[in-house]
Amino acid sequence: MEKTIVALDAMGGDNAPSQMVKGAVDAAGKNANVKVKLVGVQDILEKELSQYEYNREQIEVVHASEVIETGEPPVEAIRKKKDSSLVVAMNMVKEGEADAFVSAGNSGAILVGGQIIVGRIKGVERPPMAPLIPTANGVTLLLDAGANVDAKPTNLVQWARMGSIYMENVIGIKNPKVAIVNIGAEEEKGNALVKETMPMLKQLTDINFIGSIEARDIPSGGADVIVADAFVGNVILKLYEGLGMTLIKKIKAGLMSSFRSKIGALLIKPALKETMKSFSAEEYGGAPLLGCKGLVVKSHGNSTYKEISNSILQCITFKEQKINEKIKENISGEE
Amino acid sequence: MEKTIVALDAMGGDNAPSQMVKGAVDAAGKNANVKVKLVGVQDILEKELSQYEYNREQIEVVHASEVIETGEPPVEAIRKKKDSSLVVAMNMVKEGEADAFVSAGNSGAILVGGQIIVGRIKGVERPPMAPLIPTANGVTLLLDAGANVDAKPTNLVQWARMGSIYMENVIGIKNPKVAIVNIGAEEEKGNALVKETMPMLKQLTDINFIGSIEARDIPSGGADVIVADAFVGNVILKLYEGLGMTLIKKIKAGLMSSFRSKIGALLIKPALKETMKSFSAEEYGGAPLLGCKGLVVKSHGNSTYKEISNSILQCITFKEQKINEKIKENISGEE
Repeated sequence: MEKTIVALDAMGGDNAPSQMVKGAVDAAGKNANVKVKLVGVQDILEKELSQYEYNREQIEVVHASEVIETGEPPVEAIRKKKDSSLVVAMNMVKEGEADAFVSAGNSGAILVGGQIIVGRIKGVERPPMAPLIPTANGVTLLLDAGANVDAKPTNLVQWARMGSIYMENVIGIKNPKVAIVNIGAEEEKGNALVKETMPMLKQLTDINFIGSIEARDIPSGGADVIVADAFVGNVILKLYEGLGMTLIKKIKAGLMSSFRSKIGALLIKPALKETMKSFSAEEYGGAPLLGCKGLVVKSHGNSTYKEISNSILQCITFKEQKINEKIKENISGEE
Repeated sequence: MEKTIVALDAMGGDNAPSQMVKGAVDAAGKNANVKVKLVGVQDILEKELSQYEYNREQIEVVHASEVIETGEPPVEAIRKKKDSSLVVAMNMVKEGEADAFVSAGNSGAILVGGQIIVGRIKGVERPPMAPLIPTANGVTLLLDAGANVDAKPTNLVQWARMGSIYMENVIGIKNPKVAIVNIGAEEEKGNALVKETMPMLKQLTDINFIGSIEARDIPSGGADVIVADAFVGNVILKLYEGLGMTLIKKIKAGLMSSFRSKIGALLIKPALKETMKSFSAEEYGGAPLLGCKGLVVKSHGNSTYKEISNSILQCITFKEQKINEKIKENISGEE
């Protein structure tokens, strides 16, 4: 089978370049069908790589002299730093030298670059950031988690359809349930955007639209695909992370409150760790920016090699399942 | 000291009337300065009351023959059911026969009734629903959690000021930190509403405005008062509830996964329960609809006597601290 080629922005992210390089090695070891092009400062990357054993046909270093920092204004950074690892790696996707781009770097630059450098599939209005979020019984795809605030109803309709394609083909959920985030289940509830979008979603025959979902029902897995304006989507994603962290801290502190609970804590540690792992975003890799020509994946800024490895590996399924071809058929087909 | 008179909608909520009546008895027992007028079907309420010992000067039954159900369309229900417990109790606040209204009933009817029956303080544009949400180190006031979607910048500015008054005087946080929910800390981030509201908040000299807060930083207690459009606020409130429940369920299931963890679970049970209690909304009573003439408090639909009791008790502080007088001075004063 044809290898999936991933251009990895090896200089982006809190733990770059060491965890990026380690993630590439990990992914290559796990799947022979992937080739990672590590983009960044050659000397540094080669030195990092020299620590590992790996198949030389699966990992290659591509030199890029500049680095876009996390805090830089995105548009300016992309325009000025033509030889940054982020821009060089994105250009490789544009030129067909790579199938996918993965980065844990500057979020804004990834969003802007995805649209300006890699470019949108014809007919796609605004590519949404689409992370998988953990639920009681699996995962749910959230679109848009931060790319497009003040979205239009037609944007949300496209996201519902792209999300449905992704969940069915990448995650393997047959006929995924699609819902729109709302503040009540009743017909008359919602803001202007939801009220305008709702009838458009109801008319679609190519997705399994189940109506409104209240935020309360997201963690229990009430829907497989959830659409929302990026402001709301981002609040959901970030609150998920923040609330999880705070609850775990409080539980840990609570367990240290007495001798009895300290003993108990020792006994439950492995089980608790396993539970929290199933609720951690790390396990699911990065979030694709759906609807770009070629795959663009944004990993968390604090990604370790595990998340980077998962982000790289998910690119294989994305390519093999021909997600972009399916998006083209479904979205551009009707233009 | 003058008693605080609370009109309790004894027929509203999933656990009405039994838990409403029990909550009134509990509150009366805890504070001699409160008088509860139990509004609802007289026979039923008197029968419930007969189970308890209580000070007869602190609890009184006021008959109302009708009940507004949870699912009823709010505006229609309020217009048609003039003798419902909710409408009768609200009218008592309007007529000055009670200082405060408490209900666990139909949310929409409480919001609509608060505005139409009880009425807004002069100058207040749109009264926000303002629940306290638990954080790592205390509580944060969230406005608006569901009353006004598609809000205007001037609404959020008023909410910031009313919220600040509430936290300082009812909860006792000096110079509370006020923030606006945003999807990034950078100046250029945000949707149209946030971008327009931000400079207006920055200009205020009567509150301690600290800028943006990302949803990730809400649970750790990043701000004391948080303003957001009601759609976003409601998503935050509901996700808080839903995610907490799902995490606890998963942890409990995880603890049952091995013999070792089962033993540990027994040992940690008391400590875990205490921890979760501190993160439960029940402890903080209901949410006030701030800016009405007289206090309107909405308790959770599934409130038990504990939350009802806390909702009643918080009315005393609200009255004694003259919150509405302070809102009048601050909000109407400038009209």
